[in-house]
Amino acid sequence: MSTVIKGGTIVAADRSYEADILIEGETIKAIGPDLKGEKVIDAAGALVMPGGIDPHTHLEMPFMGTTAAETWESGTFAGLSGGTTMVVDFAIPNDKGMLAAFDDWYGRADRSASGDYSFHMCVTGWDERTFDEMETIVGRGINTFKHFMAYKGALMVNDDEMFASFQRCAALGALPLVHAENGDIVAALQQKYMAAGVTGPEGHAYSRPPEVEGEATNRAIMIADAAGVPVYIVHVSCEQAHEAIRRARQKGMRVYGEPLIQHLVLDETEYFNKDWDYAARRVMSPPFRDKSHQDSLWAGLAAGSLQIVATDHCSFTTEQKRFGLGNFTKIPNGTGGIEDRMPVLWTKGVETGRLTENEFVAVTSTNIAKALNIYPRKGAIVPGADADLVVWDPKLSKTISAASQKSIIDYNVFEGVQVSGLPRYTLSRGEVVWSDGQNSTPQPGRGKFIPRKPFPAV
Amino acid sequence: MSTVIKGGTIVAADRSYEADILIEGETIKAIGPDLKGEKVIDAAGALVMPGGIDPHTHLEMPFMGTTAAETWESGTFAGLSGGTTMVVDFAIPNDKGMLAAFDDWYGRADRSASGDYSFHMCVTGWDERTFDEMETIVGRGINTFKHFMAYKGALMVNDDEMFASFQRCAALGALPLVHAENGDIVAALQQKYMAAGVTGPEGHAYSRPPEVEGEATNRAIMIADAAGVPVYIVHVSCEQAHEAIRRARQKGMRVYGEPLIQHLVLDETEYFNKDWDYAARRVMSPPFRDKSHQDSLWAGLAAGSLQIVATDHCSFTTEQKRFGLGNFTKIPNGTGGIEDRMPVLWTKGVETGRLTENEFVAVTSTNIAKALNIYPRKGAIVPGADADLVVWDPKLSKTISAASQKSIIDYNVFEGVQVSGLPRYTLSRGEVVWSDGQNSTPQPGRGKFIPRKPFPAV
Amino acid sequence: MSTVIKGGTIVAADRSYEADILIEGETIKAIGPDLKGEKVIDAAGALVMPGGIDPHTHLEMPFMGTTAAETWESGTFAGLSGGTTMVVDFAIPNDKGMLAAFDDWYGRADRSASGDYSFHMCVTGWDERTFDEMETIVGRGINTFKHFMAYKGALMVNDDEMFASFQRCAALGALPLVHAENGDIVAALQQKYMAAGVTGPEGHAYSRPPEVEGEATNRAIMIADAAGVPVYIVHVSCEQAHEAIRRARQKGMRVYGEPLIQHLVLDETEYFNKDWDYAARRVMSPPFRDKSHQDSLWAGLAAGSLQIVATDHCSFTTEQKRFGLGNFTKIPNGTGGIEDRMPVLWTKGVETGRLTENEFVAVTSTNIAKALNIYPRKGAIVPGADADLVVWDPKLSKTISAASQKSIIDYNVFEGVQVSGLPRYTLSRGEVVWSDGQNSTPQPGRGKFIPRKPFPAV
Amino acid sequence: MSTVIKGGTIVAADRSYEADILIEGETIKAIGPDLKGEKVIDAAGALVMPGGIDPHTHLEMPFMGTTAAETWESGTFAGLSGGTTMVVDFAIPNDKGMLAAFDDWYGRADRSASGDYSFHMCVTGWDERTFDEMETIVGRGINTFKHFMAYKGALMVNDDEMFASFQRCAALGALPLVHAENGDIVAALQQKYMAAGVTGPEGHAYSRPPEVEGEATNRAIMIADAAGVPVYIVHVSCEQAHEAIRRARQKGMRVYGEPLIQHLVLDETEYFNKDWDYAARRVMSPPFRDKSHQDSLWAGLAAGSLQIVATDHCSFTTEQKRFGLGNFTKIPNGTGGIEDRMPVLWTKGVETGRLTENEFVAVTSTNIAKALNIYPRKGAIVPGADADLVVWDPKLSKTISAASQKSIIDYNVFEGVQVSGLPRYTLSRGEVVWSDGQNSTPQPGRGKFIPRKPFPAV
Ligand SMILES: [Zn+2]
Ligand SMILES: [Zn+2]
Ligand SMILES: [Zn+2]
Ligand SMILES: [Zn+2]
Ligand SMILES: [Zn+2]
Ligand SMILES: [Zn+2]
Ligand SMILES: [Zn+2]
Ligand SMILES: [Zn+2]
Repeated sequence: MSTVIKGGTIVAADRSYEADILIEGETIKAIGPDLKGEKVIDAAGALVMPGGIDPHTHLEMPFMGTTAAETWESGTFAGLSGGTTMVVDFAIPNDKGMLAAFDDWYGRADRSASGDYSFHMCVTGWDERTFDEMETIVGRGINTFKHFMAYKGALMVNDDEMFASFQRCAALGALPLVHAENGDIVAALQQKYMAAGVTGPEGHAYSRPPEVEGEATNRAIMIADAAGVPVYIVHVSCEQAHEAIRRARQKGMRVYGEPLIQHLVLDETEYFNKDWDYAARRVMSPPFRDKSHQDSLWAGLAAGSLQIVATDHCSFTTEQKRFGLGNFTKIPNGTGGIEDRMPVLWTKGVETGRLTENEFVAVTSTNIAKALNIYPRKGAIVPGADADLVVWDPKLSKTISAASQKSIIDYNVFEGVQVSGLPRYTLSRGEVVWSDGQNSTPQPGRGKFIPRKPFPAV
Repeated sequence: MSTVIKGGTIVAADRSYEADILIEGETIKAIGPDLKGEKVIDAAGALVMPGGIDPHTHLEMPFMGTTAAETWESGTFAGLSGGTTMVVDFAIPNDKGMLAAFDDWYGRADRSASGDYSFHMCVTGWDERTFDEMETIVGRGINTFKHFMAYKGALMVNDDEMFASFQRCAALGALPLVHAENGDIVAALQQKYMAAGVTGPEGHAYSRPPEVEGEATNRAIMIADAAGVPVYIVHVSCEQAHEAIRRARQKGMRVYGEPLIQHLVLDETEYFNKDWDYAARRVMSPPFRDKSHQDSLWAGLAAGSLQIVATDHCSFTTEQKRFGLGNFTKIPNGTGGIEDRMPVLWTKGVETGRLTENEFVAVTSTNIAKALNIYPRKGAIVPGADADLVVWDPKLSKTISAASQKSIIDYNVFEGVQVSGLPRYTLSRGEVVWSDGQNSTPQPGRGKFIPRKPFPAV
Repeated sequence: MSTVIKGGTIVAADRSYEADILIEGETIKAIGPDLKGEKVIDAAGALVMPGGIDPHTHLEMPFMGTTAAETWESGTFAGLSGGTTMVVDFAIPNDKGMLAAFDDWYGRADRSASGDYSFHMCVTGWDERTFDEMETIVGRGINTFKHFMAYKGALMVNDDEMFASFQRCAALGALPLVHAENGDIVAALQQKYMAAGVTGPEGHAYSRPPEVEGEATNRAIMIADAAGVPVYIVHVSCEQAHEAIRRARQKGMRVYGEPLIQHLVLDETEYFNKDWDYAARRVMSPPFRDKSHQDSLWAGLAAGSLQIVATDHCSFTTEQKRFGLGNFTKIPNGTGGIEDRMPVLWTKGVETGRLTENEFVAVTSTNIAKALNIYPRKGAIVPGADADLVVWDPKLSKTISAASQKSIIDYNVFEGVQVSGLPRYTLSRGEVVWSDGQNSTPQPGRGKFIPRKPFPAV
Repeated sequence: MSTVIKGGTIVAADRSYEADILIEGETIKAIGPDLKGEKVIDAAGALVMPGGIDPHTHLEMPFMGTTAAETWESGTFAGLSGGTTMVVDFAIPNDKGMLAAFDDWYGRADRSASGDYSFHMCVTGWDERTFDEMETIVGRGINTFKHFMAYKGALMVNDDEMFASFQRCAALGALPLVHAENGDIVAALQQKYMAAGVTGPEGHAYSRPPEVEGEATNRAIMIADAAGVPVYIVHVSCEQAHEAIRRARQKGMRVYGEPLIQHLVLDETEYFNKDWDYAARRVMSPPFRDKSHQDSLWAGLAAGSLQIVATDHCSFTTEQKRFGLGNFTKIPNGTGGIEDRMPVLWTKGVETGRLTENEFVAVTSTNIAKALNIYPRKGAIVPGADADLVVWDPKLSKTISAASQKSIIDYNVFEGVQVSGLPRYTLSRGEVVWSDGQNSTPQPGRGKFIPRKPFPAV
């Protein structure tokens, strides 16, 4: 069956122009004026964009003694409703190794995902098995490996492990990702604040200051440079980390920085809310920062020193959060965002004049597809690409609310934020999977694993 | 007639992929596998790129009491032979005003140009006529206005003139360009060195130190920011100017920086050559810099803080240069480069690993077309675009030499540089205008004026 | 007669130590334990410091059509009451030239000053007479020349005038000072805001944004560097100017930066006060800034990239301020501060841990005496130095209030600020001129002109 | 007995002035004109300065399987001959702990030192004994603790050990010192280069790039900031480390940086010398750098972002160096410098105009005494201070040569450097211990341990 999206303005990373889009099966067949198809999707007055890609989610993640309550089913559907057609989740090996982790993650996603997906594989230590498995994993279609510099005693790797893994990435054509916070200092500060009787969510913020993130970012970059590999810093939340990134880029190093939509618009005062639940729901790492950091992140997106906006969607219920009552170090880390990333970024970024609509597409989709080496299958509106498309209606608006969200979590960190700009339709590989006001529902198992090839040697 | 470019790899700013290109008339009709046309151009083993755009030339420019010897005929043909299919030249009004200048420049180009062209209009003072003429000029298809902060007593404007003009640009949807050197200080240093008996070409370099350029760049940016308009800094030659640009970009300001191929690869030691002619031929403003500045410029191109590589092609013969014998301030300022920009950038940039082939396309063509608002008619390989294309053969090589160049000047500042990577064919609006080893010749009058619309209001 | 200051802790720029000070006549005779003198001043529990020097005042200055109401008599006495024993005021030539200006300023000060004083001479244009007079002025004991980059149409000099003057300074062993704001842009922005109906004091802030100061600072530094002379930037109010200064210092340039006590503790919200009088009283140039700039200034003092804290004391009455009702460009620029500089800096700087007590002495006295080449006659506690001393009592406190101040102005921009740390006694050349709680009175004519020799050639 | 130094110009950190100095016993009694004493030292035409302090030596240090050949006797005497009257050496505990190390170092120094001395105590791990011993060590007169971030498997501490120790320093009023290189990455790069067959001294430079030092510097500063303690970075050799330091200082952090005289004037090309011995003799950590780093270090000294010039004097004979033939990782790390620091700094720093003579005194003596809390007993010319003085004759000159040096090592890394500016006399606590051309000899056992009190709480 053929479908034509008619009457819209195509907004790509490089330009905006009026044209129809003809879809045959799962892919884009043609772009141009006056196209015809069996089914017509009305894009009059709307912008047609590549579907959003969220490169940073943790659906159903086992973490801190529990499992993130947002499921593959609810999470990917929430994404589609907000214009995000693909997620990249983090597979975390336990002692059974990377292949078992791959199978685990694949199994859950395959069963439940409504939208397409891929994985990053985590490197949580270093030994010969890891060295060997990395090659196998690349063979399975994963070209990114994640490293935690925090979560001491759990996921954290130290500098020589990271250097070994980065060198392996260089050899395999893979890209290392880094969660950059100094885990030693975080652990010591956690102890210090607990000992001082600061046991509430504000202790989470105090024990993870921006300097701790800036330091680790700087270190990760140095190690990548020594290993001769680019590096991708996830959840860049502060000027200190951004400064390290742009300093490196100005030496010709290839470094990517990913701010989250949360850090772009929310700030640390959230942790000082008297309501423990309210504050604990916002606990994530890195924590929200002083408002002054937001200017740095926005300017970085405009200047190109930061390239990607993600969510780190890792949602726990209030009940799960209460695990950390009396001890902030036990509050499961993570918030939602997948459903709201694009509307909030549009509202706070494009409507304010900070970003152009083309930059919006770049940072929510195109740059991500390039960084993860699935461009232009994803992230582009060109013939042959997957027909992951959003018909974006700048006149649709709503007030974000847990009560009405698709996510199954009982709260939303953007509660009360007014957004203007929402999907009229979202298409996943040619099929309308979200239609505003039409009671769309999840289609578990519809989503496909998108293999990602290694990068060519430089 | 239809033409198909077969068997090549298309290299665009965003990706590289194998496909044929079908051209009908002057434009690209289709891109895809196995295309057929009446005429076939063999691109096997080659890269097919958008034709280069040189946004900064001065052909037949009246300057410093003489006229640049490179003509529209020779200059544009030299460009085509090196892969550059369009130039943007600077129209400089005399007391007859901008419209007369437009007619002058248009007349010469229309008669002689082999490739397409446009103009920037210079603002050399401020009064009501200028205010009014700017609007008319925009109506004629020019959306960029150039301002000289140097050449005191001639082209230079001062800060309030520049601010007035920038505000006018903002109102008209035009982009201001700036030659950034502090003209007051240059003039005073010229006097000082002449008085001290430093009369040779080295005096040119001494009297225009990098700080003088950095200062003016910083000032131009502040004025643009106050006027609420983006700004484009031409011929960024040093770390000081680059630093000012990236500092501004990191505040969210929209600033473009254009290094020249000369400054990327040549350095100030050229001026210390004992042969007066040798040194004088390299006299241009800003002068070549200490080698350490080159790292800054290359990193800027990779990081995105600099976006465009140009030439400031403004070629005088050795005889013309000798006008400044005994007084370096009288040496006509300018060198060639249009023919060599792309091969030299490829050789020194892509082959060394500093830039990717996609970045090469971006900085020689795509980014320029975007900055000048003629994208994607120029700078892109998409259906509907002008078929300005280069079939780039990375295996073709030569040694640059005045003896064999297309430029009619009697020397070449890149003399002796080995380049690998040259056009196998260059197409201008669908027609092969340069064919390696086939004795192509200029086609004066073939080139067309490309009107450029004002930018949309933000 | 001999005087001994007993029982105190001497606080110098380099160290703190317990010792008595013996004064004979006007100078310090000895420092050590158990000294004896005819008169004893009790310093038990107190710190004994070099008298403060305010390097930036405008007493009885004719400006903007009126004359600053703070007189030499009231201003210098206000200074003594706050620990400041010397001021350096700005002599501004009219068309009668520098010598006449010197005589004018000298006449007023000689008649009325209670504390010692010197002058900076302003360079407000460039011609042969200026060139010649500068040498004569240096002969009269002035080694600093002030340049205004703002106040277009009045005091402002342009770049080549400034360069000429800076070169002259280099030749004479004099130090150029600069008021750094881009006068062209300020004038244009003033027009723009007035035209837009923004006529109140907030328009003053809007028309002089930090970028305008940063730009001019950067330019002044470049010009000084080209002229081969150090440079002193007065009233550094923002990160942008500070950034330019420290960037230059990191290239080995000799640049001094002087924040004012006002900018260290007051911010731009003062101009948004609904009470026109309240806001207008705060109008000075540069205006108070967004609070975030204060961190930059404080850190600069601690790091040494800024060295001096001054006041730009230039006080107009509310009645005089009202000259600008309906037109903010006519509000006389200036506020007081001489009386409060040291207590406020102590309270907000030393008591908060930002500065050590030794750094306090450095930035209020020692660094200033060095920069102005009167060290160690002033600014030091060493045998032979003038006995300008403050017995500083950290336990004395008060609430700043116009009602109780020594200044004759009818308001105080620090109204309501609680200070702890005040002079118990202030001595000027050996004589107690201020004694807390003892109804000290001005001694007009007591102050002496302190000649300042040119700097030695480098 | 009293001694008077007559006819000289006293050069202190804050000023230069003509005065005689009267010494009684070991201390300065008086400073002034026309002083008289039993013995007269002629300082006519000379500068009288505080004796140099070298805050960074390793005399007779057991290291890398051998012991530094420079002894306390030869090293301290070499220092005196070059104007350095005090050294601070590093006591390194083995498994017997800090007190045993103190006794060891004290024993050797007490027996052999000609000049005064103190120690830094090294923290090479973390446990309760270390926690306890630190307090005892402070009680013995040591207020500085050194931490190695390099020398993995030997001296290196990791981040949480360092954080624990820094917090302990904060509590004890002690200052942490850091050798900042990322030991993990150094070890991995050493392996890599050895595996690649790069076994010569050039491998030493390759395996310790500037980024590795910059990273560790940045990390040490973050950890100190989190612990609430100032930090002193030893042997700052590159722009990367300097950048981290000044970035921190611009946030108000208290960070000291110590370049070595070697890094200020020697560069990495030394390691490329074909003569293995030549190159190996220059092996030290951090290695010499690309020449461009020197500008950064010199500017830092002028700007105040770096404060101290040291030597890291740790001299091995050529025979000892040959231990690393065929394996650069076994070349004992270290060079000499104590004898040459002051003449070389004077020649390359003061005579070139980079530093004033007062800054020379600051960075070789006064700033060091302050940073180590022995000011003004050392580092100052004031009554009551130890009479550690240098009569510096700017007209004395020599060519540095191993053949004529006082050091007992068989080579000198400054071989062939012409210096002008040498001690005419060096006095240690009032006694002439070096007299130019008078065959002075060491006086083992003459030197005294100088206890250093903890810093006052902030
Ligand atoms: Zn994370
Ligand atoms: Zn995550
Ligand atoms: Zn130009
Ligand atoms: Zn030009
Ligand atoms: Zn001023
Ligand atoms: Zn002033
Ligand atoms: Zn070391
Ligand atoms: Zn050492």
